[in-house]
Amino acid sequence: MRLNNYSKHYRYTGHFIMNLLNRYKEVREKSQKMVEPLVAEDFMLQPAFFASPPKWNLGHTSWFFEEMILKHFYKNYKVFHSLFGFIFNSYYNSFGDRVGRDQRGDLSRPTVEEVFQYRRYVDKHMIELLGSGNIDPDMKTILDIGINHEQQHQELFFTDLKYAFSLNPLEPAYGENAFCADAEDQAPAMIRMDEGIYGIGFEGEGFCYDNEMGRHKVFLHPYEISNKLVTNGEFIEFMNDGGYRKFEFWHDDALAWLTENKIDKPLYWRKTDDGWEQFTLAGWQAVKPADILTHITYYEAFAFAQWKGMRLPTEFEWEAAAGEFEWGRRWEWTESAYLPYPGYKKPEGAVGEYNGKFMVNQKVLRGASVVTSEGHSRKTYRNFFHPNLGWQFNGIRLAR
Amino acid sequence: MRLNNYSKHYRYTGHFIMNLLNRYKEVREKSQKMVEPLVAEDFMLQPAFFASPPKWNLGHTSWFFEEMILKHFYKNYKVFHSLFGFIFNSYYNSFGDRVGRDQRGDLSRPTVEEVFQYRRYVDKHMIELLGSGNIDPDMKTILDIGINHEQQHQELFFTDLKYAFSLNPLEPAYGENAFCADAEDQAPAMIRMDEGIYGIGFEGEGFCYDNEMGRHKVFLHPYEISNKLVTNGEFIEFMNDGGYRKFEFWHDDALAWLTENKIDKPLYWRKTDDGWEQFTLAGWQAVKPADILTHITYYEAFAFAQWKGMRLPTEFEWEAAAGEFEWGRRWEWTESAYLPYPGYKKPEGAVGEYNGKFMVNQKVLRGASVVTSEGHSRKTYRNFFHPNLGWQFNGIRLAR
Amino acid sequence: MRLNNYSKHYRYTGHFIMNLLNRYKEVREKSQKMVEPLVAEDFMLQPAFFASPPKWNLGHTSWFFEEMILKHFYKNYKVFHSLFGFIFNSYYNSFGDRVGRDQRGDLSRPTVEEVFQYRRYVDKHMIELLGSGNIDPDMKTILDIGINHEQQHQELFFTDLKYAFSLNPLEPAYGENAFCADAEDQAPAMIRMDEGIYGIGFEGEGFCYDNEMGRHKVFLHPYEISNKLVTNGEFIEFMNDGGYRKFEFWHDDALAWLTENKIDKPLYWRKTDDGWEQFTLAGWQAVKPADILTHITYYEAFAFAQWKGMRLPTEFEWEAAAGEFEWGRRWEWTESAYLPYPGYKKPEGAVGEYNGKFMVNQKVLRGASVVTSEGHSRKTYRNFFHPNLGWQFNGIRLAR
Amino acid sequence: MRLNNYSKHYRYTGHFIMNLLNRYKEVREKSQKMVEPLVAEDFMLQPAFFASPPKWNLGHTSWFFEEMILKHFYKNYKVFHSLFGFIFNSYYNSFGDRVGRDQRGDLSRPTVEEVFQYRRYVDKHMIELLGSGNIDPDMKTILDIGINHEQQHQELFFTDLKYAFSLNPLEPAYGENAFCADAEDQAPAMIRMDEGIYGIGFEGEGFCYDNEMGRHKVFLHPYEISNKLVTNGEFIEFMNDGGYRKFEFWHDDALAWLTENKIDKPLYWRKTDDGWEQFTLAGWQAVKPADILTHITYYEAFAFAQWKGMRLPTEFEWEAAAGEFEWGRRWEWTESAYLPYPGYKKPEGAVGEYNGKFMVNQKVLRGASVVTSEGHSRKTYRNFFHPNLGWQFNGIRLAR
Repeated sequence: MRLNNYSKHYRYTGHFIMNLLNRYKEVREKSQKMVEPLVAEDFMLQPAFFASPPKWNLGHTSWFFEEMILKHFYKNYKVFHSLFGFIFNSYYNSFGDRVGRDQRGDLSRPTVEEVFQYRRYVDKHMIELLGSGNIDPDMKTILDIGINHEQQHQELFFTDLKYAFSLNPLEPAYGENAFCADAEDQAPAMIRMDEGIYGIGFEGEGFCYDNEMGRHKVFLHPYEISNKLVTNGEFIEFMNDGGYRKFEFWHDDALAWLTENKIDKPLYWRKTDDGWEQFTLAGWQAVKPADILTHITYYEAFAFAQWKGMRLPTEFEWEAAAGEFEWGRRWEWTESAYLPYPGYKKPEGAVGEYNGKFMVNQKVLRGASVVTSEGHSRKTYRNFFHPNLGWQFNGIRLAR
Repeated sequence: MRLNNYSKHYRYTGHFIMNLLNRYKEVREKSQKMVEPLVAEDFMLQPAFFASPPKWNLGHTSWFFEEMILKHFYKNYKVFHSLFGFIFNSYYNSFGDRVGRDQRGDLSRPTVEEVFQYRRYVDKHMIELLGSGNIDPDMKTILDIGINHEQQHQELFFTDLKYAFSLNPLEPAYGENAFCADAEDQAPAMIRMDEGIYGIGFEGEGFCYDNEMGRHKVFLHPYEISNKLVTNGEFIEFMNDGGYRKFEFWHDDALAWLTENKIDKPLYWRKTDDGWEQFTLAGWQAVKPADILTHITYYEAFAFAQWKGMRLPTEFEWEAAAGEFEWGRRWEWTESAYLPYPGYKKPEGAVGEYNGKFMVNQKVLRGASVVTSEGHSRKTYRNFFHPNLGWQFNGIRLAR
Repeated sequence: MRLNNYSKHYRYTGHFIMNLLNRYKEVREKSQKMVEPLVAEDFMLQPAFFASPPKWNLGHTSWFFEEMILKHFYKNYKVFHSLFGFIFNSYYNSFGDRVGRDQRGDLSRPTVEEVFQYRRYVDKHMIELLGSGNIDPDMKTILDIGINHEQQHQELFFTDLKYAFSLNPLEPAYGENAFCADAEDQAPAMIRMDEGIYGIGFEGEGFCYDNEMGRHKVFLHPYEISNKLVTNGEFIEFMNDGGYRKFEFWHDDALAWLTENKIDKPLYWRKTDDGWEQFTLAGWQAVKPADILTHITYYEAFAFAQWKGMRLPTEFEWEAAAGEFEWGRRWEWTESAYLPYPGYKKPEGAVGEYNGKFMVNQKVLRGASVVTSEGHSRKTYRNFFHPNLGWQFNGIRLAR
Repeated sequence: MRLNNYSKHYRYTGHFIMNLLNRYKEVREKSQKMVEPLVAEDFMLQPAFFASPPKWNLGHTSWFFEEMILKHFYKNYKVFHSLFGFIFNSYYNSFGDRVGRDQRGDLSRPTVEEVFQYRRYVDKHMIELLGSGNIDPDMKTILDIGINHEQQHQELFFTDLKYAFSLNPLEPAYGENAFCADAEDQAPAMIRMDEGIYGIGFEGEGFCYDNEMGRHKVFLHPYEISNKLVTNGEFIEFMNDGGYRKFEFWHDDALAWLTENKIDKPLYWRKTDDGWEQFTLAGWQAVKPADILTHITYYEAFAFAQWKGMRLPTEFEWEAAAGEFEWGRRWEWTESAYLPYPGYKKPEGAVGEYNGKFMVNQKVLRGASVVTSEGHSRKTYRNFFHPNLGWQFNGIRLAR
């Protein structure tokens, strides 16, 4: 892995550097705190290939710091365990073979306690290194990535656990907080945006990912974008109108997905004699019509928009208008495919695998969700998923 | 099916109207002529779900005219056979149930001769209708679509037959013409394009599809695009350099595709003691290094571009520069996902299923190929396929 | 392939030898005659991996004689086409690679006419060889196998064609004969069989397969076996009683099969406003309650017997009692797994692949069916299929 | 569930009745003791659909006593948890819906500790009931089944855990005991058995399963059976001779299995520079040539026997000769399909699902293995598995 070019690709400033040690500690403690309500058995759960066991998430984020920083910048660093690289590598082909993504739940060892020991070992060395004052510029960049990376896995922790708990007939709850998003108060309105050339992509100081870089111009035709997200109640109307069965609102690939998986309602919803209920991190709860809809796939978001006679915004339209509406409680599907910005060049080495290799077959989401760490997202942040996945806290904002 | 809005969506002019009858006859005769070298057994071939038997293609294109024109505009029209709608409907959900796409090869009846009778019956009525002078404006639009539609199936006839013949150990040939594209003579050069706002999409007179409409502005940053297509020889270099095994050039989804299908060379290629050979419509032939490469998937095109340190053009870059280079022998992969243009609104009814419902998970190709009917394509024409398909005559043009 | 041991494994006598030439001609002509009602397109049909196109059946049976006899016993024989061995080998691993079983329908060439030429070429040489009087004992054995082999493929021709035609919305018919089996006239009765040692397996003169050889003793406890086969009407009662939904009558593997394939009625049956109909070689016809039930899988046969409070006979019980009832219109499922008889030793070489390698996971059927060639079967004949297949003319005889 | 007929189907005597309470306690304590070396995470492991998590095994065996005994014979019994029946039902259709077999590993709750509480609750009531002296004859029968049932799951605990640990790159060990079977000392010899009528099936006193009942006569022809099991060394010879690649030794279904799963060595074996190693419950160890071979599928056992010019014994041959050789360290594959004995009638109700519904597509194994509870097996005991499974301690005894 060549490291010397990172500083070109990831931007940071004095303000961030000074706080690195504190930010490191904070994010690491949060991961530890998040798993406190769990029992040892919960740490093993992997109910689908796209979800990871909590234990793996904890090990993987520590491995990232060990592999990317300690092995390079901590003199004579001795790895905690020679096989943890194999076990906790997620998808970095640069590091060779790894445990299959769908087999992470098959490993009972290392135990949770051993993973905690691993975390403490990595933290001890990281804090020592950061406290030494001898900080390489490249290392700072990677550290920033590592911190953001761990925040992403904190988000995944919540969404994966929710998915796993939803399948358990005992209906376990993570806690009191259902992580629902209450109704938005503002009166519904369409925000009008003028045609013109807009600047898109990250600029200024602070951290951003490589996929946001390459500030560039995009010409936008006049458009309108809603100041509110779609609510549960609006989606129930769509269902009551037979939306799931009207082929004309759906993509061809979506129809195949509907049929194969017998989809006729959102993930986590069930109909009872008392009406619609949804599974939450606080257990099953009634669906409140005024609350913001979530756990929607792109396929469903698109069909809903068609039914409304509207459409999803592009990621450029979203970014250009993001100052005009509130966002941050839902990842919002856009019509844009996840593609490189003009001039995008993926960094060399392992960090180059972070974003670039996913730039096909996926859709861009913008915003942030109720389980995103504070400060992790920004207007230019680009999230991405395959169009059939809805286990994230995804929502819909309409445009036309 | 409501027909009254078509004329808003599809554009045509007097010049085209006058020639409609001649163009109708011409395209219908060409379909008939194309299949002359076949034996009855060949008409049944469906070697993969994405390929259709020649017999089905012949029936389907006739059904299109019967269903879309004769049933609406020919007074008291009596359908040739009440079940042919079920058998020869391709994917139009508006018309209800249909034979599964992968079961078209399971039907020995109607026979080839009966399909020819069907064609003659449809032609007789169409010619009568067109000759009557009583031509509804909507009908003219649909007729234009029908003619273009049949041209598309003529192209598919060649690509599907090539695929089927390639699997036969007897190595049958369709004829003398290998439909290879000879070397391009011009000296290789990169065409420089300035930054600025470009107009994209169809304008002017003549036929175009709904997906080209909505002429709009796109801001392009400065870029360069090659005046030549990638050759067989260049791709052999990529292979010799281990290109298929170097993960860093490939998308994550592409790596899964490579592994699952054990791909390590282009479709139709095989290595013999005498070097690389490729299957053609004239049988197996030596691969000539200077000839233009073809039958490449998007995944391969992308990886090749990465290896070259370049990239594929976007469809907008391609269209803006299309006057500067020769095109027409290969469908050229672009980096663009197949998405609606700003303001795109799919036509109501069955014609609305032509393009809109495929606008997810596919990539745009521009140009035309050696088996495209003359005059069928144009600078603004948008073809599209899933990124793992290579049985069309696809090629690569690089940009940076 | 070593041939010299065949005569030990397959038995024949003077009576059969004398008639070999006539029998050869007769069976070959019958194959030719059977396909007369077909159009060229029908010869390509392969609607499921377990069915073969009529064209392939015709080629395969000729290849058997060419490969097993002409190449060994006809001096300086020149094969008709060097690739036909590859194309028309069914499953004989001894002869190396072959076209995949599910790809036989993907080959339009050789054409039907070329396959007829192949048949004539093989026949010419075979008749010459047989007429020469110079007949090797081993050759006679193989010839007998070849004749029986072709009779088996004649049976498959009917069952495979029926399966293919049943999927065609045009409901084609092979001819006037529905090949249904009319009601059996005799009064229903249970035939009582005493306990004791019975001789099982072929003895005496005439042809038999290797799997029938090894005449041996089996001790049978007292049992009763029905003198009649189960009728359509009886099976309708089973269905009306919810038989397909009562888990207690079904094997565990059968329940998985029912669920996965959504089975709730026999193959070829459909319910109309006028009651049950079944697809036949003469088209769709009303199900007559008194007629003999057919196209039943072992799973269904077993469940039906459970529901009746009875069971299927073992193949030994069937053989011991076969003189006491009429048989020959249905292949009858037995409870016996297809296993080697004591002392079974498969012949060396290709002929050894005929039976032995299928002796796992399959069930024995006894009898013969309405499409079996006259004289092909006998009391000791052992047919075998996987328990989930019902496209043969299978039926049920009960025991207790 | 009707219980009143059990005593007809399962046999027991005074000797067993007196000891029931002690035997109950003993088997329950053993289950508890067996899991002591595990950490909580290990209890979640389900690496394949056919393996169950240790936690599930513990819950399921308790549920059996609760469902089959306490709910019927303990007056006013209150179930521990209303959903545990749903969670811990294995495959008894009589009790309605249940957690899918492959989803047992997806449930982190109930926790291991809660399952232990469940066990203690069930034990408390069972001991009270058994101590009361008021013992219904039917209950005794079911209790005997329950005890044997728990012994079967103790065996599965070891085999499933071994399978799960074998996939972990950390190579965890359960303990010091590798559960290998040392070399057999006796000189190799073939035991000759005379032809004649043999009595097969259980007789006398003590417990047996329904599938062993129906003592009946079987005529056996003269045969020989080995006094020793096949060793690792003999199987290595088979491999060195290319046994896995010689089609003539394998069934047709076996060849498909070999190809699809790329099998070329026994489960748990790997080749290192130092020779063959196998995974054991004590970690990876060198394969000792003189030790008894194990973890062999039926497909492999059959191919090996073919290669040796011998065959596997039938289950009848095995039982008739079982007094003449030592057995008990390997489950031994037989050539017999798992079928009902003459006169077999499955018990009514849930107990009837224990054996009968598996009597298709499986092969009989005889004997016992190193992880079978002492006294659990007997000469007439019939174990059964699908022919492609080798995760039990299966071995090979040859016959001819």
